[in-house]
Formats: sequence, C-alpha cells, structure tokens
Amino acid sequence: MKAEIVAVGTELLLGQIVNTNAQYLSRQLAGMGIDVYYQTVVGDNIERIKETLKLSCSRADIIVLTGGLGPTQDDITKDALAEFIGTSLHIDRMAMDNIDRFFMDRGKEMTENNKRQALAIDGGTPLPNETGLAVGNAVTHEGTHYIVLPGPPRELMPMFEQQAMPWLMQHVLTNELPLYSKMLKFAGIGESALDDRLSDLISTQTDPTIALYAKEGEVTVRISTKAPSEGEAMEKLNELEVQIKSIVPEHMYASEDVPIEQVIVDMMADRGWTLSAAESCTGGLVMETLTSIPGSAKMLLGGIVCYTNQIKHKLINVPQQLLEGEDAPGAVSPEVAEVLAEQIRMVTDSDFGLSVTGVAGPGHAERKPVGLVYIGLSERGKKTEVHELHFKGNREMIRIRATKALLYRLWRRLTAVQPQ
Amino acid sequence: MKAEIVAVGTELLLGQIVNTNAQYLSRQLAGMGIDVYYQTVVGDNIERIKETLKLSCSRADIIVLTGGLGPTQDDITKDALAEFIGTSLHIDRMAMDNIDRFFMDRGKEMTENNKRQALAIDGGTPLPNETGLAVGNAVTHEGTHYIVLPGPPRELMPMFEQQAMPWLMQHVLTNELPLYSKMLKFAGIGESALDDRLSDLISTQTDPTIALYAKEGEVTVRISTKAPSEGEAMEKLNELEVQIKSIVPEHMYASEDVPIEQVIVDMMADRGWTLSAAESCTGGLVMETLTSIPGSAKMLLGGIVCYTNQIKHKLINVPQQLLEGEDAPGAVSPEVAEVLAEQIRMVTDSDFGLSVTGVAGPGHAERKPVGLVYIGLSERGKKTEVHELHFKGNREMIRIRATKALLYRLWRRLTAVQPQ
Repeated sequence: MKAEIVAVGTELLLGQIVNTNAQYLSRQLAGMGIDVYYQTVVGDNIERIKETLKLSCSRADIIVLTGGLGPTQDDITKDALAEFIGTSLHIDRMAMDNIDRFFMDRGKEMTENNKRQALAIDGGTPLPNETGLAVGNAVTHEGTHYIVLPGPPRELMPMFEQQAMPWLMQHVLTNELPLYSKMLKFAGIGESALDDRLSDLISTQTDPTIALYAKEGEVTVRISTKAPSEGEAMEKLNELEVQIKSIVPEHMYASEDVPIEQVIVDMMADRGWTLSAAESCTGGLVMETLTSIPGSAKMLLGGIVCYTNQIKHKLINVPQQLLEGEDAPGAVSPEVAEVLAEQIRMVTDSDFGLSVTGVAGPGHAERKPVGLVYIGLSERGKKTEVHELHFKGNREMIRIRATKALLYRLWRRLTAVQPQ
Repeated sequence: MKAEIVAVGTELLLGQIVNTNAQYLSRQLAGMGIDVYYQTVVGDNIERIKETLKLSCSRADIIVLTGGLGPTQDDITKDALAEFIGTSLHIDRMAMDNIDRFFMDRGKEMTENNKRQALAIDGGTPLPNETGLAVGNAVTHEGTHYIVLPGPPRELMPMFEQQAMPWLMQHVLTNELPLYSKMLKFAGIGESALDDRLSDLISTQTDPTIALYAKEGEVTVRISTKAPSEGEAMEKLNELEVQIKSIVPEHMYASEDVPIEQVIVDMMADRGWTLSAAESCTGGLVMETLTSIPGSAKMLLGGIVCYTNQIKHKLINVPQQLLEGEDAPGAVSPEVAEVLAEQIRMVTDSDFGLSVTGVAGPGHAERKPVGLVYIGLSERGKKTEVHELHFKGNREMIRIRATKALLYRLWRRLTAVQPQ
C-alpha cells in the first residue's frame, strides 16, 4: 500500500512556514505499514493542484491532502479535488452547525465566507474537526483513496488520529501487516564509521530492515519489520538489536530515541549520584544540555563557566602557577582539565566532576590551535581521566562536539564499560 | 524564473526529520525573486529520483536538489542526476583533499566509502563544502539549471549562500533586476504585537515590501526592493527603516540579521565592559548563548550554574536565610534574583551581573508555578533591576524565553533606553 502526501499552500512555497505536517503524517503512515514514496508541496492554484493530483494518483493508492480548507478565496483544496474526480461539493450539516455555534458563542456575526469551511465532497465521508472549523473529507474514487485534512497541526493531528486513521483501517488496510520499529542510539562514533562496522550485517539483512542516520554527535539506527503482532515483531527486532549491540557495545547507549544526556540524567538520578562541571570553551553548553532534561535537578548540582583564569582561580582554586607564567602549561592543557574536574567536584561535593577547556575559535588562544580541546572526568575515589581531542569545524560545531564527547565519556564511565 | 526544490531522503519520507531545508531554500529563492511552484520529497531510490527530475525539468528552470551526498550506499543523488542528464561523475580534487585532511587531522583511517563524498558531475561546477565533507554541484543541461546541496542544514546553508547564490546570479539571473533586502531585528515583542504596531505601514506599503517572521524570542522584518543599483535600493530601504524604527524604537536592536547576543557582545567588547551571570533554571543557557559569539571572551568573565541552594551559598555567598526556612522567600524570588545578580558581579569583579531563577517545569518547585521566572540585572554603582516574568510553554520554551528576556533587558540597559 503506497501513500503520497500533498500539502497545499503558497505560504509553504514562500518559506513562511515549515511543513511539519509532512513529517507527522509520514511517521503516522509508516507506523501503519503504509509506504510514503513522495511528499509534494503545491501552491494555492487550482490547475497546479489538479496536475499534482493527476500525477499522485498514477503512483499512489492513498493521497493525503493537507491545507487550503480555510474560509478565504485562496482555500481551494476541496474545489480542486471535486473538479478532479468530477463531483460536487455540498454543505455538511454538522460542520455548519459547528461553525454557527462557534460564532454564536463569541457573540460575533459569521461572515459568508466561513460557510466554505463546511463544504464536503459528494459521496465522501466528512471528517469532523474537533479543534477548528474546517471539516475534513475521506473519499474513494476509481480505486484511489483521498484524505483531506486542514493545515494547522493542532487541527490536523487530532483529525488524523481520531477520524482518518480509523477510516483507513476500516476501508483500506483490511489486509496489511502493521510495521514495527525500534530506534537504537549510538554516541562516540560517526555515521560512516558505524556504517562500516555494521556493513556485513547491513548488506545481508533484509528483514528487519536497517537504516542509519546522523545528527550532530549521535547516530540513530532504525530497525523495522512487518508482523501480524507486536510480540512477533519484537522478537525479530530484539534479536537483531542483540546482534548489532555485540558489534559496537561501547557505542550503543539506548534502544529508544533519546539523547545521551537523557540516559545520563536518568541513570545518575536513579542511583543518587551527583555531578558538577567546570566549563571553559563550551561556555555552559554541557550544563545547559544536561539541564534540558526534566529531572536533572536531582543529579546536577551546578558548576562554573570560567572564561577567565581569574575565575578558575577564585571560584574553584585552580593554582595560578598552572595558568600563568613562562613555564605554566596554560588554561588549555591536560593539567588544567584535570584540576578543573577535580576541584569542581570537591568544591561542590559531588560524586562526579566534568571539565572542558579548549580553543573553540575562530581565533587561537595561548598559541594553541583552534579545535584543540581537553576534557576531564573526575570521580570520587578514582583516578581522574583526561582526553585530548582535536575537532574541526566552526565555533558552534567545536563546542557541540566537545560537549558530546564529554557526555559520551561520562556515559562510558557510568556504565563501567572499559575505556578503549 | 521558476524553481523547484527536490529533497532526497527516505528519512524524510519516514518522518524521522522535518524538511527545514525546503523552507530555508524557498525563502532564499523568494528573496532572489525566483518563484517556487513545487517542493518534492523523494526517497533514496535512483529510479524515483530520475522520474522526479523528469517531471521537475518539465516545469522549472532551476532545480535545487538537497540530500543524499553522504558516504553510504544510500547516498545516490549525484549518481541519479548524472544518469538523468547522461553524463558521468569524477572525483573532485579539492574535495578529496579536504576529506583526506579531515581524516589525517583526526589520525583516523579514511574508509573507502568516504571517497563518494568527493564525487562531482562532469561539466558542472563543484561547490566547496566549508562545514562538511560532501562537495556540492551546479550544472546546466538543456536549459535547466541543477544545484546539488548536502542535506545537513549547517552544510547546506553556507553552501547555498556562499557558492550557489553567486553561481545563480552569475549564470542564471543575468537579466533580472536584482533584489536588495535589509533585515531589521526586534526583541522583547511578539510577532503579532509587532505586526499590529506596524499595520498601517504594512497595509499601505508596496515598494519596498515588508515581511515579518518570528523565531523563538525574536522577530525579523525583511524589507526588500528591486533596483538597478545597490545605491538606489539602499536609499529606499534606509528610508523605510527609519520609519519603522520610529514606531518601535525600544524593540529594534539591529538592522542586519544578527541575534541580540551578537549586538551585546560587540557593544560590551568595544566599550571594555565585562559581564558575569548566575543561572538557575536556565542551567547555563544565558552564558552558552553569549559565548556562542566569537569575541565573547573579551566581555564574559564567566559565572555559575547554581541548581542547588548549597552552590548559591557556597560559591557566591547568597545568604542561607533568603533560601531556606519558614519565612524565607526561597530560591525563586525577587530577593534571590537581586542577590544573585549583585553577588556574581562582585565575586567576579565585573561591570554587569545577570541572574535568572525560576521554575522551568515540568514539575513545580517551592510550591511556585511552572513558568514563573525572576531575572536580575546588576550594574556597578547602579540600582539592581529585577523583573518578574510569567512564561507559557514547555521546559525548553520557558528556558529560551527567560534567556531572551534577560538579554533584551541587558540590551535596553546598555543602549540606555529608559526601561518601560
């Protein structure tokens, strides 16, 4: 079963809004085992909408149209569809009542153009709008199923889940197997390196399918299979997950779609462990990343951002002789990374102390190159680990990569996987 | 001149990511006076990409392809385009050098698949990638112009602006009257409130055109005009800018597309003023935002992230009696915001001290509601200002809005515009 998403709206073509509906619908349709091969955006132009429908119905069984159901003259999606399948529109009684009630409740007079929002396609099923005024539609014509949804996400989402999805289940998907997926998450390894290490598996594996994609500092592997029941699907998915994990155990940090900071916060909060940080070149990004997770107040005590040597010395007692002077290693050095991690842990009395010091650029510092970063990880009663890292990219990328590298090292320490 | 955007990537069709590139490119193309009539998303399938190209070149003069330039077997955009226009691919020397250097710098071995990222289309113009490894391409075939860009926005955006845009100007848009724009930036006011205050101007103005768009915590007004020379355009744009600024002087912080933190960093660094911050609910976001700007080391000394009362007390001497006890105002209070701002300024000996304390949620704290935030601004020798703010939204939105509100207040103070 193949579907196509057609978003109607000149505002999308002008870049005034992002087409988040396409993402939402794609995900929903994938979850129902329906393949989406194309997404199209077309403007508020009746000829171009009809051209698009002609093409779409030549290659898809289900066409989901979004947008263009409002009251203005630009809102012509239903008109275009009715013309295309050679039928007419009528006022849907329930939708009209809904619109009348809306204006009555507000003591406002309904303008004539609002009636357009109650238009429904002859021979179709109107889809009530629980959170807005424009009625949706579902209609089948010559073997193609058309779903018409409003553009605003807060109207589209409930309409899809409560109206369109049951309609599709009942009228279209009577014989399909549902698709089940699992997201495996990886840190400390790039997309191409992970692709490489999993290449034997990827090239021989057909069911479940394996797909990789990368975001800054983490890689996601999605494994998917169609099965008659969730139990059967999970059995196949779990088996493949174990295989994948056995190849890269030191990088797979989750088997659901969460960032590594979520895993760290949950693990530390559960065990009652506390953390503090002293950040130089990341300027607060490490703490900001951790505190973006609800519940982080349980484990992150706080820390300092120390852009100057004075603050390093004054707030957490980093010895001046390490920072300044002819033979001093300087602020960007393994020695200072070590002392920062240990001192912030001691001053705040936390179980773990993190540190970052480096050159984020664009200019160099202390005659050290842009991209040179030292990270430190101190644990109560254990030897402090320090890593020297070299990053490329602009200031933002260096800061993000340094943060992700430090979180990866912390995760490794917390899970007690032996360092490489 | 008509353009079409074709995004390639199964991850888009599965709804794993949102197609923000389509919005970005649509807006850029609109700004160049190029009409976008369609946006299409197609999967990593060579036949379907070629089908899409066949359709697109029948209705557009410029086709912008995004995504599918990476190192894996799924990345086939260039292969599809080369097959479609009947030409071949070759390794671009500069791109290959860039890839070799990347791996050498990291002391890692380059895997064979990375060479694919250096592939360029015979007869085309390679577009260097300043922030990544995959080279882009621009090529003209039978009157249609193809631009091939990488999928990650941080690679695509600089490549479009620095490489593709000049290529289009030089090779394609030779007869068009060039479009000139100015971006005016506003803080401390929402999009609809600004729209309202500018409504008389917007409804009567036809040239230059005025367009508003909003990002979290700031609003951009783009004014544009077509003119034979930059001088003529600027005269019209500057005149309108003066009119706009006279309507909302207390909110317009820049007449170029920069974030407010950039204006703050530049202004403070120029004047030799220094800053420090004490952050509770924002968890480092204020300092992270400021330090994202190159040159911030000149003005931001540093500060603390104080998630616990103990750290507030221990590191910067906030009195215990304010924080804890039956009658204490508690950590989320105007009193503590004031003391935090003053103490961080005094401890670090800076000219200005900022503070944020609040409830970012999802749970409440100290029986205070989610969204309640106090911000403080202390200046050497002046009375400290404290503002009580109430934000709606989730944890992330509350943190961003609190940060933006504090930066806005700091900008107001620095520009010596009188507080409202």
